[in-house]
Amino acid sequence: MDSAREVYELLAAVRAGAPLVHNITNYVVMNSTANALLAVGASPVMIHAEEEAADMAAIASALVINIGTISEPWARGMFKAFAAAEKHGVPVVIDPVGAGATPYRTRVIRDLIRAGKPAIIRGNASEILALTDDRLKTKGVDSTAASDEALYAARRIAEERSCVVCVSGRTDYILDTNRTVAVDNGHALMTRVTGLGCTATALCGAFAALEKDFLKAAAAAMAVMGMAGEIAAEKAAGPGSLQMHFLDALYALSKDDIDRRLKMERTS
Amino acid sequence: MDSAREVYELLAAVRAGAPLVHNITNYVVMNSTANALLAVGASPVMIHAEEEAADMAAIASALVINIGTISEPWARGMFKAFAAAEKHGVPVVIDPVGAGATPYRTRVIRDLIRAGKPAIIRGNASEILALTDDRLKTKGVDSTAASDEALYAARRIAEERSCVVCVSGRTDYILDTNRTVAVDNGHALMTRVTGLGCTATALCGAFAALEKDFLKAAAAAMAVMGMAGEIAAEKAAGPGSLQMHFLDALYALSKDDIDRRLKMERTS
Amino acid sequence: MDSAREVYELLAAVRAGAPLVHNITNYVVMNSTANALLAVGASPVMIHAEEEAADMAAIASALVINIGTISEPWARGMFKAFAAAEKHGVPVVIDPVGAGATPYRTRVIRDLIRAGKPAIIRGNASEILALTDDRLKTKGVDSTAASDEALYAARRIAEERSCVVCVSGRTDYILDTNRTVAVDNGHALMTRVTGLGCTATALCGAFAALEKDFLKAAAAAMAVMGMAGEIAAEKAAGPGSLQMHFLDALYALSKDDIDRRLKMERTS
Repeated sequence: MDSAREVYELLAAVRAGAPLVHNITNYVVMNSTANALLAVGASPVMIHAEEEAADMAAIASALVINIGTISEPWARGMFKAFAAAEKHGVPVVIDPVGAGATPYRTRVIRDLIRAGKPAIIRGNASEILALTDDRLKTKGVDSTAASDEALYAARRIAEERSCVVCVSGRTDYILDTNRTVAVDNGHALMTRVTGLGCTATALCGAFAALEKDFLKAAAAAMAVMGMAGEIAAEKAAGPGSLQMHFLDALYALSKDDIDRRLKMERTS
Repeated sequence: MDSAREVYELLAAVRAGAPLVHNITNYVVMNSTANALLAVGASPVMIHAEEEAADMAAIASALVINIGTISEPWARGMFKAFAAAEKHGVPVVIDPVGAGATPYRTRVIRDLIRAGKPAIIRGNASEILALTDDRLKTKGVDSTAASDEALYAARRIAEERSCVVCVSGRTDYILDTNRTVAVDNGHALMTRVTGLGCTATALCGAFAALEKDFLKAAAAAMAVMGMAGEIAAEKAAGPGSLQMHFLDALYALSKDDIDRRLKMERTS
Repeated sequence: MDSAREVYELLAAVRAGAPLVHNITNYVVMNSTANALLAVGASPVMIHAEEEAADMAAIASALVINIGTISEPWARGMFKAFAAAEKHGVPVVIDPVGAGATPYRTRVIRDLIRAGKPAIIRGNASEILALTDDRLKTKGVDSTAASDEALYAARRIAEERSCVVCVSGRTDYILDTNRTVAVDNGHALMTRVTGLGCTATALCGAFAALEKDFLKAAAAAMAVMGMAGEIAAEKAAGPGSLQMHFLDALYALSKDDIDRRLKMERTS
């Protein structure tokens, strides 16, 4: 495939379509996630209460669920929104933030990904491993290396849930039951800004709203994320200015930027 | 009236008086709202729990209620704070974020604006319409066009609640039972930064703390917001840098800036 | 002591060790706190639910508790996390945000600091006074002057709880039962950015994870905070750009910066 053209066309479709992305996400990243969705051209809404989460999900173009600062009332809203989204054909993207860090968190996320059919699950290696495997204990949310073990776990989840799984890290791997795409964009300084992983998940939602091949949607979202991060890192003096330039770069990302920067490869 | 002088004098009064603005607002914008209030010279406090919201509202100079990420426990705090503010003569400013998006949200906000006497209600056209009218379904929080219909709804609410209603959009309309002011400041890029509407509402609170003609207070707040946004947009490379420059501009906004930029008109 | 060398060595230890700092903090500052911890080299995690707060605290390198937007469910998580941290030898740093502003808040924080043995308590003068004294009513979270009265209250708390107390203000005073350190770094513009006090508390957590003399840890954290703020203020056009430059400065703070800027003095 001509990846650069496909990525640009999907980005252009998001900008033109301004898909309504319903986020039930964590307190830490709500502001930066909403800003990234606006910068990329989507229309974010943050609603979590069980009294209205289902009604909102039913009319959204995509639903993004992120368990970063999970608690029981929020979990109830997530399950209700997931069910409503599924009923109305709205794609659901899930971010298992910190999966493995505590037994409660691991139980909630394992229940959640099996409560319906997610379109895309995006996490780092240790989070993806924690979705299937009790042997690993994560040290929070910072793990960045995608091990063979994590890719094996990702494939098992992709098969079990018939969904796309993205294992993000220095190289992002996006896979479904039989295909794998590797994206090599991004910059190390991005790991010093909180919530860019959560932002990547939200962008997956925006792209999944407009591209029903969720492997392509997730790969394009991860690439756009990484390229904007590279541009920002070139201008940044540290993580503070990186965050600012990142939003500007996401907003301005051009066909030419993508042609020059995209590092996306179909590896299986 | 010499609008520019009045706006500047009110801004100077906020800077000198540092009014304590009690916000019960949404998770997405708490940080940016607090920063905008600090930048304009006010003293923000964010307290929502029903155990203490009334005690805080009673000693505040203004109370700002924003239903963006509403849930039952927060609604209880809002109603209690509203009652306490009213009892102690503290002006209350309400932002009906996303009104109309779900039945729950619409019901809560309709009850809230009728639970006491608000000083100012500020929303976009679809949110204001949803306060009185079941026929309109909003697509979230992004609507920007102020229709004749919305202005008619705003006037009805202003009459029913004896309050000021601000319908924000490309042109902001601020009205009470018999007066209308139009403010034409601002910049399109501001719609790509989350929560600037919520910030505008919070600034209305800061200004209402010091100006008991709430039409003047709201008009000045919307104008200050818009002028700071214009200055920021001239320096910004995108929505990330806009947000940063906006806070700097709010902090530095001068008499001369206001003289040169203010576009405020009494239209009825 | 050669303070500059000690401060730098502790900063270098944080950068090398990337201690896992578990924060149960307020909604307003979660994002900025996480970003500051990442910028200084620590590894932040934000988890509050009573179902998992204890499990997380048990495996953290430090626990930071901040009552800024307290409510009952969060208080339960704080008490559970505190008990677990104490049981596992994890240092606990407490920020009594807004203590004294409402009776509920004052009661919760007084109970909390006596529910276990904190390592460090950091607040402004009025907050520290409110921990022991019913006569003072704070006007929220903005108080900046450290009075003799506050230092007397701080010493009483340090003795009662066998902990370090930091009274922050224009000059920060860090004291335990018999020692006092004064830190004179920082810049007035920092008071116009929300949550920098909360950030200071979080940095105390990162430093306490690696320095068991908590007086030295807290003094180093306050100094690093203040020096980064000074560097940022020199580059900033207002509070918006200050916040950005602050994170960059925290990330880049060098031995040379510390040698030139540190104003730390043992005063008793």
